[in-house]
Amino acid sequence: MANILPMKIINQKTPHLLIDKQKAIRNLKKISVKYRNSGIIFRPHFKTHQSLEIGKWFGTEGVEKITVSSVTMAAYFARNGWNDITIAFPFNIYEYYDIAALAEAARICLTVPSPESARLLADICVTDIDVMIEIDTGDGRSGTEWDDFDTIKSCTDILNSNSNINLKGLLTHSGNTYKAKGAGEIKSIYINTVEKINRSRSVLGITNLLISVGDTPSSSVVTDFGNIDEGRPGNFIFYDLMQNSIGSCNPEDISIVAVCPIVDIRRRAGTMVIYGGGVHLSKESVFIDNRPVFGLAVKLHEKGWDFFPGNNFVTGLSQEHGIITCSGNLLNSYNIGDMIGIIPVHSCLTANLMGEYYLFDGTRIDHL
Amino acid sequence: MANILPMKIINQKTPHLLIDKQKAIRNLKKISVKYRNSGIIFRPHFKTHQSLEIGKWFGTEGVEKITVSSVTMAAYFARNGWNDITIAFPFNIYEYYDIAALAEAARICLTVPSPESARLLADICVTDIDVMIEIDTGDGRSGTEWDDFDTIKSCTDILNSNSNINLKGLLTHSGNTYKAKGAGEIKSIYINTVEKINRSRSVLGITNLLISVGDTPSSSVVTDFGNIDEGRPGNFIFYDLMQNSIGSCNPEDISIVAVCPIVDIRRRAGTMVIYGGGVHLSKESVFIDNRPVFGLAVKLHEKGWDFFPGNNFVTGLSQEHGIITCSGNLLNSYNIGDMIGIIPVHSCLTANLMGEYYLFDGTRIDHL
Repeated sequence: MANILPMKIINQKTPHLLIDKQKAIRNLKKISVKYRNSGIIFRPHFKTHQSLEIGKWFGTEGVEKITVSSVTMAAYFARNGWNDITIAFPFNIYEYYDIAALAEAARICLTVPSPESARLLADICVTDIDVMIEIDTGDGRSGTEWDDFDTIKSCTDILNSNSNINLKGLLTHSGNTYKAKGAGEIKSIYINTVEKINRSRSVLGITNLLISVGDTPSSSVVTDFGNIDEGRPGNFIFYDLMQNSIGSCNPEDISIVAVCPIVDIRRRAGTMVIYGGGVHLSKESVFIDNRPVFGLAVKLHEKGWDFFPGNNFVTGLSQEHGIITCSGNLLNSYNIGDMIGIIPVHSCLTANLMGEYYLFDGTRIDHL
Repeated sequence: MANILPMKIINQKTPHLLIDKQKAIRNLKKISVKYRNSGIIFRPHFKTHQSLEIGKWFGTEGVEKITVSSVTMAAYFARNGWNDITIAFPFNIYEYYDIAALAEAARICLTVPSPESARLLADICVTDIDVMIEIDTGDGRSGTEWDDFDTIKSCTDILNSNSNINLKGLLTHSGNTYKAKGAGEIKSIYINTVEKINRSRSVLGITNLLISVGDTPSSSVVTDFGNIDEGRPGNFIFYDLMQNSIGSCNPEDISIVAVCPIVDIRRRAGTMVIYGGGVHLSKESVFIDNRPVFGLAVKLHEKGWDFFPGNNFVTGLSQEHGIITCSGNLLNSYNIGDMIGIIPVHSCLTANLMGEYYLFDGTRIDHL
């Protein structure tokens, strides 16, 4: 057949995600070596990729303990050979019996954020299970505030009242690093986080409690992890525009790109319309030049992508449409029917929407 | 077994969507009667619900022609008895052969936004197919500007050069109504839209071109549709917080709610943490009280929901967590383990993420 269709990178017709495996493995090695050299347990968060195949890349790096953010994810990985899984999301009592079933086959660790949550678990729990108490060290999302010592103590008492529960440690997500700008600010938030959670433990006086901290910005820029036992970053395997804007990574570290067909070029308006909308990229945005940005256009080639000179951001997203506001010569370098790459703002959400990945050789990679 | 678990509305354990079918049908009847009484073709956009079962509700109202925004959606409905489908998204050449296969069994109408797009289609098209030219009447998203008459003429010439193509009409999405505040502004944008697209047609001088206009805000508030042939609204079946903030609907018209388990209550901070994050609700937001809002908490009961006095908005969303900033007495009325309702900001995106619906009697409703 004549080559009627424009060239594709791989054999896909609609928006899809490509992984530069070399970059992903480089990111993985960099972070895992850091934890290993620090003598800290590396328990990466698999909510970012949600992939058995990518899980194998972690296994090759010696990873055996993992973090997930839902019981469904825990089940996906437990069914496929992972047997030490922390569910770093507040205990949802409706899923107790599913968790109990999982705990028959794998070592499952739950998270409880407060005495009320601990009470629900202690009243129902008839299976041996590990539990972390979630401490809020400044993020303000969930967990008991680090300095509310009486309440933390109350959590430990309630959990210890049920002999099936093994109180394992204190867990925090220092998600306040996501509001940081630059490595300096990330580091100072990290130091503050570690100080606070250590203070929570020392006031409790239960010295064998493990301390678990997790977020990609600090795992990326901190060189001395200080007095913690476990790290749970996740996003670093891919990185994205948001991590770049925080200061966690360079653009060259980002290992994932959405491939989108160009379906309209509006030369008067200086915009390109891509097949790639909110149902592909997610509506997550970062503010750049005082406007929300939903992605960055890059030039695809057969083995990866290059950055264009100047910024060509996705500045509008509806359900299926994306709008690239073009600078420089971009409009004249493309035709309708070409494929263009979009670096996502938040790779976890984009991967969740796309539901699968490909490598540049066309290999399909699973996603839960 | 003892009733250990808190009460659920239906037998679901994790975030899920419920439809108040009575409200949905009321919305549907109101809009369909309006088009019928105006003698205008009602071609509702099924991208909102993407559901065969909900499609049947439309069928009961006499709907036979539908709009979708992807070839995949067109295939889903064509496989299940719908045989007059407009794909209101710019032609993606990579999917041409899939479209051609669909066009064997159903009447498929494509959208081309520009001469370049028309050329790609005209060069490849070997199947009888309807085509609409997309006109930009002010939205600025895609299509040829309404007053760029030479370019519109160029589209018609190119399309007419291929005898398999039946140039059917001019199509616009007046998405600029989404930036309106209140019925008055929506109406004036609508009148302006209809004037512009009629002017495009009259300059072309092809009087038998059908004019198709579509968006939920104007279909909801306009009483005289003026000189158009077809309307393509979609969101009105559910509505949502965004439509309410634009002025398309009252809160009581919204027919969809996300049901989310409460997993933490932070009385010091005045917040509730729900299992329901960006992967459930989407990161779409509306600005209310100068901050982005991702949903509105409502009180669920067995047959529907009631609004709380005061506003209790979802003010934060991460991958799986939602944060409700509580006012009034809300914190004291709930316990961890209760289910709470969240009215979504953008029902299309929430439905797309959830992937299924339920009625209050527990009946499951499909989503593509």
